[in-house]
Amino acid sequence: MSILIRGVGLEGRITDVYIEGNRIRRIGERLSLPADKVIDGHRKIIMPGLINGHTHAAMTLFRGFGDDMPLRPWLEQKIWPNEAKMTREDVYWGTKLACLEMIKSGTTTFLDMYHHFHGTAEATEEMGLRGVIAGVCFDHFSPEQAERSKRHNERLIREVASYGERIRYALGPHAIYTVSGDLLRWCHQFAVEHDVPIHLHLAETRGEVDDSIKRLGLSPVRYLYRLGVLSPHLIVAHGLYIDDEEIHMLADHGVKVVHNPASNMKLASGYRFKFKEMREAGVSVGLGTDGCSSSNNLDMVEAMKLASLIGKAWRSDPEALTADEMLRAATEVGASILELKTGRIQEGYLADLCLIDTHTPVFTPNFNWVSNLVYAANGSCVDTVICDGKILMENRQVPGEDEIMERAAEIAYNLVKR
Amino acid sequence: MSILIRGVGLEGRITDVYIEGNRIRRIGERLSLPADKVIDGHRKIIMPGLINGHTHAAMTLFRGFGDDMPLRPWLEQKIWPNEAKMTREDVYWGTKLACLEMIKSGTTTFLDMYHHFHGTAEATEEMGLRGVIAGVCFDHFSPEQAERSKRHNERLIREVASYGERIRYALGPHAIYTVSGDLLRWCHQFAVEHDVPIHLHLAETRGEVDDSIKRLGLSPVRYLYRLGVLSPHLIVAHGLYIDDEEIHMLADHGVKVVHNPASNMKLASGYRFKFKEMREAGVSVGLGTDGCSSSNNLDMVEAMKLASLIGKAWRSDPEALTADEMLRAATEVGASILELKTGRIQEGYLADLCLIDTHTPVFTPNFNWVSNLVYAANGSCVDTVICDGKILMENRQVPGEDEIMERAAEIAYNLVKR
Repeated sequence: MSILIRGVGLEGRITDVYIEGNRIRRIGERLSLPADKVIDGHRKIIMPGLINGHTHAAMTLFRGFGDDMPLRPWLEQKIWPNEAKMTREDVYWGTKLACLEMIKSGTTTFLDMYHHFHGTAEATEEMGLRGVIAGVCFDHFSPEQAERSKRHNERLIREVASYGERIRYALGPHAIYTVSGDLLRWCHQFAVEHDVPIHLHLAETRGEVDDSIKRLGLSPVRYLYRLGVLSPHLIVAHGLYIDDEEIHMLADHGVKVVHNPASNMKLASGYRFKFKEMREAGVSVGLGTDGCSSSNNLDMVEAMKLASLIGKAWRSDPEALTADEMLRAATEVGASILELKTGRIQEGYLADLCLIDTHTPVFTPNFNWVSNLVYAANGSCVDTVICDGKILMENRQVPGEDEIMERAAEIAYNLVKR
Repeated sequence: MSILIRGVGLEGRITDVYIEGNRIRRIGERLSLPADKVIDGHRKIIMPGLINGHTHAAMTLFRGFGDDMPLRPWLEQKIWPNEAKMTREDVYWGTKLACLEMIKSGTTTFLDMYHHFHGTAEATEEMGLRGVIAGVCFDHFSPEQAERSKRHNERLIREVASYGERIRYALGPHAIYTVSGDLLRWCHQFAVEHDVPIHLHLAETRGEVDDSIKRLGLSPVRYLYRLGVLSPHLIVAHGLYIDDEEIHMLADHGVKVVHNPASNMKLASGYRFKFKEMREAGVSVGLGTDGCSSSNNLDMVEAMKLASLIGKAWRSDPEALTADEMLRAATEVGASILELKTGRIQEGYLADLCLIDTHTPVFTPNFNWVSNLVYAANGSCVDTVICDGKILMENRQVPGEDEIMERAAEIAYNLVKR
């Protein structure tokens, strides 16, 4: 399969982009190459597919099910009892809906953490996206549960081979307050041995830090340091409560961080995320949405705007967290965190990309397309999405979208009634 | 002209809505009334047109022209030199573009402040929106300029009668640092005499407050109190730096406040807007976007989300600023601030309304449509817009939109080159 995108805007010039198989093969003016499919790039801009560095895809099923509530009653009354009832089928349909939403807003790759790994993996494979899927594990400090988690992950890493290249496996220890030090150490060894990422919620709330200091005598990052599990395999979600010394501990060990502004603000977890200090220290910082139960969407264009606005606001610095930095965080930095050759429109890179329709009010005038994308637009500006060299959306149409929305809604309504 | 909207979602039930002339005449199931136009409401929700309580419409021309810059160089290098060159024609096309963007994101009424009043008024009238248009006035503390401003406003209030009912006049003294106490007092008397609103930027930045205390010996609100210009005519934009005593001064005098979260965050003006305290004290608080040079769009759906998220975040309170409160602020409270019989879907009210397309991922599942609107959606969820009983958009198409975008872009590019 080959695709030729004709006359599209790329970093201020008009060019052609030629895709063959799953790679961007050629970029240049008026390419005369035969293609199975030609796309007219007139009034469009090409950009890398966005990378959602932290989500729980299947939680689309809980969108709007409980809002404006304190964290604990929300989890105890709304989320946990319903999550406990979820089947692989539920997770599959919730993830299909999430993938549909991601495609519609320009995301081509996501890092997920949830239960029923195969529900997520199967839906992602079918929908054509690239997913690094962390099988969530926790032991609640019970050695028996820890053993089950280990065996479960040993199975998963074998079973993931049954999917194509777009589906990758990661370890997903939930958080330091649900996973024992022993299991965290096992995860670290397993990750090193198999060269896979570890995805972990860390330093998300003030309460988590206070509890960590009380229970373990150390802040979350220092606790992980003492366990010896800080490494380039580790991808931390949130990292809101991290001091300057801890930032250097993360940098020194190559730990990556994913910032989730919508979720942090909506749950009132905090907002003083140290994007600038982390970047300056050399920490790779990506962006994510978190799950739809807290964020309440998967729109990475919105995530870029929120990250910039909240970062400028709390620092009283309008120059901080520029539109360009946000776009890099959501593309090439996100790709480097997941060690994938995506996130750039460049020959040899994976053909994971979007065409933005600029013939809209928010791109008018178009003095600076990155500013318009980050500050004026939202995910609905995405017209066409290609992932792994395959067209997933054209003219904002995704094949099968009606059925996905209908089935997912039905499943969500039944789930909370069950 | 009569319009019958068949089988549309309204507050959890399915109903018909009948519009005759510029009013909502009947709401009920299976109405058998003859209509010039029938709209199918299947899979749609009807809501009041949103009310943008503070903008500078023509500044769409400066969208993305200068971002990530400190306030002063941004104004001095990017905005002021170009504003000085603007003609009525420029303002007309900038406002046409703004109206197009507002229609596309569900806004039917806005409160504007800018120069070249007639450019704004003419464009708004043509585009079919409802505009309360404040002719900006400032004297920079020069008595001659003050006299010119007075004469100018005396002319404007007569001239506004040449437009239809949708266009209303307001006084627009810019801010206390550009308008003398004498001119503010004149505005107050003029507003009382003619029963028109006064729109004023106030307490937007820490610097403004410090300067006010240094120069006038009083904080901005106390200064206005001493001038005797606090009244129900006064609509304040921003009001970020207002203490508890001042909130009660505003409440006691019936002053209204419009919160602009995107602009405040992006310019790093501040973020601790006291929405809750103001509401509790009885102050009417609306929402706005501010102009596109700072916000950088006119999406009131996004404004609701931003206001809620930043309010929850800085208060560390996930229960604060609920989705329902945000929708009220952007509809019925906004309408009450402008003293217009709009902002509700109710018999006898002005037919200013939107149909939301709920057959989209962000409205799936639809446990709570207000949550989905405020937290998951953005302005692109709006499918149909009716203002003053006339259809301005159907199936997301606005007549003449191509020409507006092309002309406005051309004018913007020429303006900055002139």
